[in-house]
This record gives sequence, C-alpha cells and structure tokens, in this order.
Amino acid sequence: ICGGWQSSKSDSSGVSNSGESSKESSRCSTPVLDADRTDRLRDKMKRRIESGDHWFSLEFFPPRTASGAVNLISRFDRMGSGGPLFIDVTWHPAGDPGSDKETSSMMIASTAVNYCGLESVLHLTCCNQTKEKITAHLNKAKRLGLKNIMALRGDPIGEDWVEEDGGFNYATDLVKHIRCEFDDYFDICVAGYPTGHPEAESYDNDLRHLKEKVDAGAHFIVTQLFFRAETFLRFVKNCRAIGITCPILPGIFPIQGYHSLRQLVKLSKLEVPEEIMQVIEPIKDNDAAIRSYGIQQAVEMCKVLLASGEVPGLHFYTLNREVATIEVLRQLGLWAEDPRRPLPWAVSAHPKRKVEDVRPIFWASRPKSYIYRTQDWDDFPNGRWGNSSSPAFGELTDYYLFYLKSKSPKEALLQMWGEELMNEGSVYEVFTNYITGQTNPSGHKVMCLPWNDDPLAPETNLLKDELEKVNRRGILTINSQPNINGKPSSDPIVGWGPAGGYVFQKAYLEFFTSSENVTALLQVLKKYEPRVNYHIVNVQGKNITNAHEMQPNAVTWGIFPGREIIQPTVVDPVSFMYWKDEAFALWIEQWAKLYEDESPSRMIIQYIHDNYFLVNLVDNDFPLDSCLWQCTREDMPRQY
Amino acid sequence: ICGGWQSSKSDSSGVSNSGESSKESSRCSTPVLDADRTDRLRDKMKRRIESGDHWFSLEFFPPRTASGAVNLISRFDRMGSGGPLFIDVTWHPAGDPGSDKETSSMMIASTAVNYCGLESVLHLTCCNQTKEKITAHLNKAKRLGLKNIMALRGDPIGEDWVEEDGGFNYATDLVKHIRCEFDDYFDICVAGYPTGHPEAESYDNDLRHLKEKVDAGAHFIVTQLFFRAETFLRFVKNCRAIGITCPILPGIFPIQGYHSLRQLVKLSKLEVPEEIMQVIEPIKDNDAAIRSYGIQQAVEMCKVLLASGEVPGLHFYTLNREVATIEVLRQLGLWAEDPRRPLPWAVSAHPKRKVEDVRPIFWASRPKSYIYRTQDWDDFPNGRWGNSSSPAFGELTDYYLFYLKSKSPKEALLQMWGEELMNEGSVYEVFTNYITGQTNPSGHKVMCLPWNDDPLAPETNLLKDELEKVNRRGILTINSQPNINGKPSSDPIVGWGPAGGYVFQKAYLEFFTSSENVTALLQVLKKYEPRVNYHIVNVQGKNITNAHEMQPNAVTWGIFPGREIIQPTVVDPVSFMYWKDEAFALWIEQWAKLYEDESPSRMIIQYIHDNYFLVNLVDNDFPLDSCLWQCTREDMPRQY
Repeated sequence: ICGGWQSSKSDSSGVSNSGESSKESSRCSTPVLDADRTDRLRDKMKRRIESGDHWFSLEFFPPRTASGAVNLISRFDRMGSGGPLFIDVTWHPAGDPGSDKETSSMMIASTAVNYCGLESVLHLTCCNQTKEKITAHLNKAKRLGLKNIMALRGDPIGEDWVEEDGGFNYATDLVKHIRCEFDDYFDICVAGYPTGHPEAESYDNDLRHLKEKVDAGAHFIVTQLFFRAETFLRFVKNCRAIGITCPILPGIFPIQGYHSLRQLVKLSKLEVPEEIMQVIEPIKDNDAAIRSYGIQQAVEMCKVLLASGEVPGLHFYTLNREVATIEVLRQLGLWAEDPRRPLPWAVSAHPKRKVEDVRPIFWASRPKSYIYRTQDWDDFPNGRWGNSSSPAFGELTDYYLFYLKSKSPKEALLQMWGEELMNEGSVYEVFTNYITGQTNPSGHKVMCLPWNDDPLAPETNLLKDELEKVNRRGILTINSQPNINGKPSSDPIVGWGPAGGYVFQKAYLEFFTSSENVTALLQVLKKYEPRVNYHIVNVQGKNITNAHEMQPNAVTWGIFPGREIIQPTVVDPVSFMYWKDEAFALWIEQWAKLYEDESPSRMIIQYIHDNYFLVNLVDNDFPLDSCLWQCTREDMPRQY
Repeated sequence: ICGGWQSSKSDSSGVSNSGESSKESSRCSTPVLDADRTDRLRDKMKRRIESGDHWFSLEFFPPRTASGAVNLISRFDRMGSGGPLFIDVTWHPAGDPGSDKETSSMMIASTAVNYCGLESVLHLTCCNQTKEKITAHLNKAKRLGLKNIMALRGDPIGEDWVEEDGGFNYATDLVKHIRCEFDDYFDICVAGYPTGHPEAESYDNDLRHLKEKVDAGAHFIVTQLFFRAETFLRFVKNCRAIGITCPILPGIFPIQGYHSLRQLVKLSKLEVPEEIMQVIEPIKDNDAAIRSYGIQQAVEMCKVLLASGEVPGLHFYTLNREVATIEVLRQLGLWAEDPRRPLPWAVSAHPKRKVEDVRPIFWASRPKSYIYRTQDWDDFPNGRWGNSSSPAFGELTDYYLFYLKSKSPKEALLQMWGEELMNEGSVYEVFTNYITGQTNPSGHKVMCLPWNDDPLAPETNLLKDELEKVNRRGILTINSQPNINGKPSSDPIVGWGPAGGYVFQKAYLEFFTSSENVTALLQVLKKYEPRVNYHIVNVQGKNITNAHEMQPNAVTWGIFPGREIIQPTVVDPVSFMYWKDEAFALWIEQWAKLYEDESPSRMIIQYIHDNYFLVNLVDNDFPLDSCLWQCTREDMPRQY
C-alpha cells in the first residue's frame, strides 16, 4: 500500500465508495457520553477484538476533479449504512495533498470526518519531506479533527535515491517523529508486507523493519494485498514470533479487471499465483466474468482468514469503486445495513463535536451547511440548546463550498424547476411535483429543491398526501416531521438511539408563503393557542412569534434505559434568524440565478424572495393527531 | 407593625401558620427559565397588578423555642398550598435576631426561603444599631438568599431616647443605607400608618415621612392594622395626592380574642371603633364567638378594600395562628389550594438555586436534607444532572439541624416502632404497618419512619397493595414511584409543570433487604436485562450495579409547549453513594439509639445496619406495567 501501490490506484477514476463509522462508536455503548479519549480507533479495535465482533475498513484515494470530489463525498454519506470501522484516504505527494484544494488528501479526509461522520485515517508519506513540512501537515490534520495517521515512507523521487542525514528515510522515522511531536495524540497505522517489501533485502529483514515501526509507536498494521490466505497467516505467525502484538489487518483486493490486475502486479512487484492466472487468462476479455470471479475469490479467501481466528478485521482496497467490495462484504455478512442511528442526524466525527447532541431542526436537510457554519464554535450543545449555547453562526457568504452546492448541472435544474416560469403558481407546481414525485409538464421529475438536495425522506413520505395539498395552495414546504408518540427506538423509519428506548416527536412544518396567506394563517392560529407555536419572518427580518424569544422548543426526544433524556432536535428562536438568511438566499443563489437578468422567471423568484414569509409551526400536543394541517388549510384562499 | 406593634405580638405563642410563594413565580410564566432578576418581589407585584390578580401575604414572628421553630417550619411547608405572594418575619432586637440560633429572625427567614421555597421579607430595625452591625446583618441576609427587607425604625430603648448624630434615627436612614450599600439588590418595604404614627407630630407630617421613605428607595408599603376600610382608603388617597405611587398593602388583623385585642390597642395606641366594641363587649368571655365575629368583620372589610380598586393585595397579621387567616382568605376566594407544582419537588427560593431543575430521587422524602447537603454548591444542575454536576456533598455529620430531626418525641417513636424488637421480623412489621396505615399490636399507627417524616404520599398510595406484600417479605421499602406514561401536567396526583404539558415516570423502588434476598434478587434480575437498572450497596460501600458508573437515569420528565424537556428527577450513581451513607446512618441515629446500649432491640437494628443492602431498581420500560413487583417477589423466600 505504500510506494508504487499508490500509483497503481491513481489511474483508476470516478466511481467510488465509502462507509460510515461514527455509528460504530454507539454500537456497544451510549453515544455522546463517552469521552473522546476512550473513543480512539485503537480502543474501538480493542473492544471489537474482545467481543469477537469482526470489522471491515475501506481505503479510498482522493479524486482528481471537483465533480469527482462531490461524487465521492455524497457516496461517503450514502454508504455509511455498511458500518466500516474506519476509512482511509491515501496521500499523493504530486497532488498537493496537504492543501486546501477540494481534491486534496487532507480536505477529503477532513470532509469524511467532519461532514460525513466517518472515523478516518489520513495517509502521510515522509520521503523527500522536511520535518517542518511534516509537522505542519500533522498540525493541520489535528486542527481539522483527524485523529489517525497511516505513516508511510512513500516513493523516492528519481531513480538514484540516497538516504538523507537527519531526514526521513523510513516510515519508522515518521512514526518516531509523530510520537515525539504529538505524544499520544494520533493513532498510528503502518504498512506490513506479507511477502516482504520489494526493496527489502530479505523477508526477515523486512519483518524486523516492521517490528521497528511498531516499537516506535504504531498501534496497528495494515498489509499490502496478497492472493492466498496462507500468505497472510504465515506473515502473522512470523510477526507474532518476533514480538509484534498489535492488530494486523489483511489488505483485501477483489480482482476487478484483467488490465488493472496486470498493472498492479507490475507496479507492486507482486506475483499472481498460477491458479488465479489459469482462471483469468481464458476470460480476460469478459469483464463481468472477471469481476464475478474476483468477488468469489475474495470471499473464499476472507472466509479462511476470518475462520483462522487471527484476523479481527478486513481492510479493502476499493479503488474508489463500490460494487465488488460491498458484494464481498454482503456475502461475508459484514455489511451492516444497520438502520439504527445514534441520533436522528449524522454525528460529526470531529473530536470537538463529540458532545454535540442537539441541533436546530432548520438545517435537517442541509446538515453539512450547519456543520460548516458552526465549525468555529468552541463548544457544542450538550443536552440543552439553551440561550448560552448559541454563539454567532459563520457568515452566510463563507459557506458556498463546492460540496454544499447542488450536485445537479444547471441544465438538469432548469428541466426540473422550469425553463420558464409563468407566475408564482409555476413555483407552487415545482414544489408539488417534488412532493408527489410525478413528472412535470416537460416530462421531468423534480428530484431536489434548493433546500432539499435529496428526494423526500422516508419519514416525510408519511406526510406526502397532506404536503401535496398545502403546496398546491402556495404553502411551499421545505421541512417537516410527523408527530410521534413513543415508537420503539428500533423503528426503521423514525427510530434512533440505543436499543430498548422510545422516541417522540412534535409535529413540525416549515414553509414559505405569501403575506396574504400569513394574514389568514394568523387568524387561524388564534384558535390553536397555546397548542401551536409559530415563528413567521420575512427576508427583512420582520418577525412574528408567540414563542419565548430565547427558549428552544424540543421537537424530537428519546427515552432510553439507564440514561438521561436526549433531545436532539429543537426549534430555536435564535438560530432561526440565521437560518432565515440562508433559506431566503437559496431562492436567489440556487434558483433565480438560473435565469437571465431581468427575465420574467428571475423576477418571479425575486418577487417571492422579497415578499414571502418563512414560517415554522410546532404542534406541542404530540399525543394527538397533528393540527398543523387544519392550521394551514382552514380559511386559506387557493390562489392559483 | 413597627415599634410597639412587635411587642404586642411577641406575647402570643405557639400555634403558627404560613404559606407558599415560590409557586407563584411559575404561575404566569415557565419556572426555572426566568432569570432571577426578573423574578424580584417588585416584578411579581407588578405582573399581578397588571393582570388584576389580587394576592395576599402573611406575617409571622420568630418562635421562642426550638420545638416552636420545628412546628412553624413544618407549617411553612404544609401551608404552601394557599399561595401567598410572600411571607415576612419580624425582627426582635431583644432576641438576638441576626444570630445563627434556630429561633432567630434571620434563621427562620432563611429557612422559609431555602427549605420551604417561600418568597420572604426579613424585617430589620435600625434604632440603637451601628451602621457596621446593620451592614453585617444585610450581608448575612444576602448570603442566605434573602432578597427583601422591611426597613423599620424599631423601638428606642429606654424612655428618654434622643437622636444620635450619624446614627439611624428613622427608617428613612435605614432605607438610604440599604440603597447606598447594596444598590438595587434588596426589595425594600416600609411601614405606613393609616391613622398616623403614634409619635408623629401630625397625620400630615407622618405622610411626609412616608414620602421620604419611598423617595429614599422603598418599593412598597405595608400598613399598620386598622378597623375600617375607609381609614385605609383615605390614607391611600392622601398618599397618592402627595406623589407616593408604589403599591400600598393594607395590614389586616382578624380579631381573635378579647384580651389580645385590648393589649394590642394599648400598645399600638389605636382606637377600636365604637361599633366594634359594642359587638365585642357583650361576648367578651365567649372566645369562639369573638373569633367568628373577627373573621366576619375582616371578610367584610377586605371585600370593600378589594372592590375599591385601590388594593392589589392583602397583608395578614397572623399572630402565628392559622385558622382565622385561612378562613378569611377562603371566604375571599384568595386561598389558592392550587395542586399545580412547577416541578415535582418544592423549588428553593434561594436566588442561587433558581436554575436548579433536576435532583436525585433518593432525597425525595428528605428534601431539606438534600438542600442542606448541597448548600455550598456554586452551581446547581440546569437540565442535566451530568457527571460534571456532582460536586461533593456536605458532610453527613454536619446536617443534623434541628429541623432535620424527627418531629416526634422519643416516646411516640417507641410506640410506633416498637418498645422491644424480637427479631428482624419485628422491623418488617413496622414497615408494613407504615404502608398499610393499620395500628400495630400495641394499638398505635406508624405515622413516620426514619426515612419518611410524613405518611405515605398520594402518589405512593397508588402502590400500597404491592408495597405491603413486599414489605411483609423483608423488602423494606423507603422510596418508590409508579410508572407514568404521559399524564396531563394538570393531573392532581402526578402532574407538575406548566399547563398543556405531559408528564412521564419510570417505575422506581428503593429498599433495604438482607444479603440472602439480594442473592435471590440478582438471579431474578438476569431475566430483566437490560429493562431493569439496579444499584445494590451495603454500608461498607460494596456496590453491585448494571448501570453506567457516571450516567444518571432520568426517571421523571415532562414535555411542555414551547420549551425544552425538563427531567427533574434522576437516579444518579454518584449521589447514590452519598445518599447511602445517610440512609444507613438513619437506622442508627433515629432508630437504634431509641434503645439502650447492648439491648436486644438495639442489636437487631445494628445487625440490619451492618448486614442489609440498600437497593434501587428502575424499570426503564415506562409504557408497560411495572415489572419491579415481579422482580421483588419471584423466588424470594419469605423469611419471617
């Protein structure tokens, strides 16, 4: 995995896969509570080894393009369901890996940790690097919330490499440097070579090098790929014999194609066993057959490895592809697809955010935006999102990071949201079509809205019929949740948190609507005092509310065995005013700007932005059927 | 109420009454949330005046004996149900009023605030006092959580009193001093004389003095008693005419006896109107008739006062008696008997404890002990009783304050708990009789236990039958609550908190039992993992638990409109170890020591203390019927 191995992967492109691991931390214990220091990767491994619970991990390389990064990151999100213990991101010295570029190793790993909540290992190579540069990289990684480093030598540049005095010549030097400069802060992984490093004098000599790396302070070993289980098992036996006691994770490479295999073999100087070549050569032009064989071969080998009792977890070289790896994991029964969530929203894996267990509901469909806007907070609310816990949010203009932008190209957005808008009613139709999932007159489905990157959540689907009705009337909904009166925490749609608990929700509805509708709504709401709390605000900040100005309203909470109550989602009056700016800005930034200046379509969106109100409603009487539909339907004139 | 008036009351003795007012603060708004600065007495008055909600207040004098203090304080507790806006405690210069004696004005007022949760006004007289002494009294009052002072001149000592240069000669000097030294910290009350102060040169001159007191910084006026409504109403009119705008509260004195009335008249130099004397003289030997007339006369006068629109609240001179005052208030419809509680336990009125909204369940029947043991805490848990919120508890040996002792004399305790114990079974019988309310073989009811000063709470009564069964088997219960799955916050038995909410509980059971029973119990509990959490500990601190060592388990919580979830009662593992010391000590201090050294009875209690375990059980599955009875009955051998 060090050296040439990296180059062999960087010629693969595009498709990628990932997994989620912050969930893992809550599997065996309560989330949130555990101090981050007992939650280190080494501790997680220790617990899993003790409980005999096999894990897997996934290796990715940084994408080459910004759109590749958007794809990779949205896959990180999607694939959290598989439950990897960690992912790792390789280090590409030629690609400015420590920079702030959206495609750098550093930024991809940071995104995996902060935005996707994945326990992540950042590779770092030391060859031809000054100590100062390495220390700067490590400081930056620490600042970004990365806690794990894979310490590698990397490829010498040029053919005639000679050792430098006082420089980094071996991975051991890097391990020592990390432990010297950062004490015990980082968990350190090093590479093992089951058949010996290609440049090593001998297999035994290479084993001694590995022992040195571990003795210098590494916490676990991931091996180069291999093709036979016995290769790895002999290697482990030899490692144990010379006193290496840390976890040794086999690197698994499901063969995915004839040419990639040949190139890999050439670069890594590995030999493909005769029995494999005999199978592959006859089918070398049949990609599907080779992939199928690769999966079967990997599954068989992994079964032997796991059965040996020597292998606590499997490390997959994914080549940023997902099909083969997931299939192998599925057949091994390791792909979790665990619907359980520690909290209703994805927990960031940044150590600073470990205590965070409550968020405003407003960013429910834009969690990355929330994380970005609160990234400079020193403290995160722990149990209460009280008035003291709402420091200023980051500037709105700062957060248009590439991965916060819509993933769809402009043309696709116009097809969904209308090449030409006739009036406000055209906008109502877009919202309605998004809810119903039906095609619009031009034959396209509305798969996203500026406030919702993804199709309707399963939970929101419960409200589909009612949402359709109100959107047709110009109640343009962007966020909602049904009331829940004590469903088991294991409920596949609304459940979250540890087993044996119960979850609850107050019904919530958030929408844009015209000032005429607001006037009618306020009349109706008088009938629902104090059952319904509302906040109504326009882009200028004119604010109408019957709620306490500082008091958050808990709208999602859970009761669990042996612990305090968790209230992870609140309607918070202070943060609503920050969200308001973002929600209104999305009309212009993501929708109006699709159209030319002064065009009627643009002016319609601009009109809505300037004149509509953003409204949120909470029905406090959660054991009863939600009254929010009556509130929004009664007496409301249908306008288009 | 100043001067001779105090002496006139201090000859009354014994019986006393009181009221509760911390509840008031939650009546119009949410508890806990409001910062203490908006919760000052002047603000409460302002809100009540604005809403047209008449209030009453109650004046007491300090008791002369320790047992009188115990009685007065237990009445403070009991009478909170009436809902006074505040109580006030008079200042007796001759009785060491600022001392730490249990009968001092300072300590009685402090107890009312801290332990009984009553908004309290401490009287303070300045005559013949140095500024330093006065400042010291005020500092002490502030430290003890008192926020309100009634500033009075007091009686000059000796006949030939002359003004002192630079000393305090008038109440105005004291008001100025308080404002000068303590800025706006204290709410200040001053006395008004509807017929003029007996020593004043003239009625008009006295009015001008009153204006000076108010201008110096007083916030409201309480008047000397009077016998005709028009006396007070003319006084108010005259006050307003010279620019006194603050609230003026009439002092109401229900006539309670012929002799006390005569003595009062003599000391206060008031004239009893002819129409009253004409009624009283003929019945002067019929106490009941005079009291009945006194009540009727007070009610009629109060009705006129309230109807005038000039009177926002009534101030009662109770003479530490309760019957007449309560009857007058009942007839006026001002006696609240409001079953609503802001939290399931009585909130302390100390400003520092205002944010406290969670407590361990263990002290549920000993709330004063909890307040005492946590009095030196700088912070009180606000929403979470997390691991960071458990500073050391006060020393066990420090808290045997007089009012924490059982109120019953030794002889009564022996009658209830047994003159002579035969074996452990005798103890089981005592517990069983306490639960059932039946008389024991010697014909006495068990009205209290060392861990329970009062008879069974209405809520615990719901569990009576089950409790009886387990106590007969040696499961000696000292604390329990039923599970509650979403009852309205207005429920008369288990409800608490603002209107429109829902309250919940997990079933809880706490008891002492033998080590044999613990062994059997642990077997049974295996069947209820992880549904039931337990802590089992003996006096040496041997601790068996399946709960997280730092994580509190919320066992009472409430969901309310427009706010965060409140979880006011928890089972907290850290505080349980402090409670354990107290719970075991009560066996010895309150029970064993009733018997002679080396007596068999004493040795039986000592044996239980040394060998039994203290157990608490939580059934986490609150929507289901409690399984704690099965846990404690199954397989448990009946021992006696």
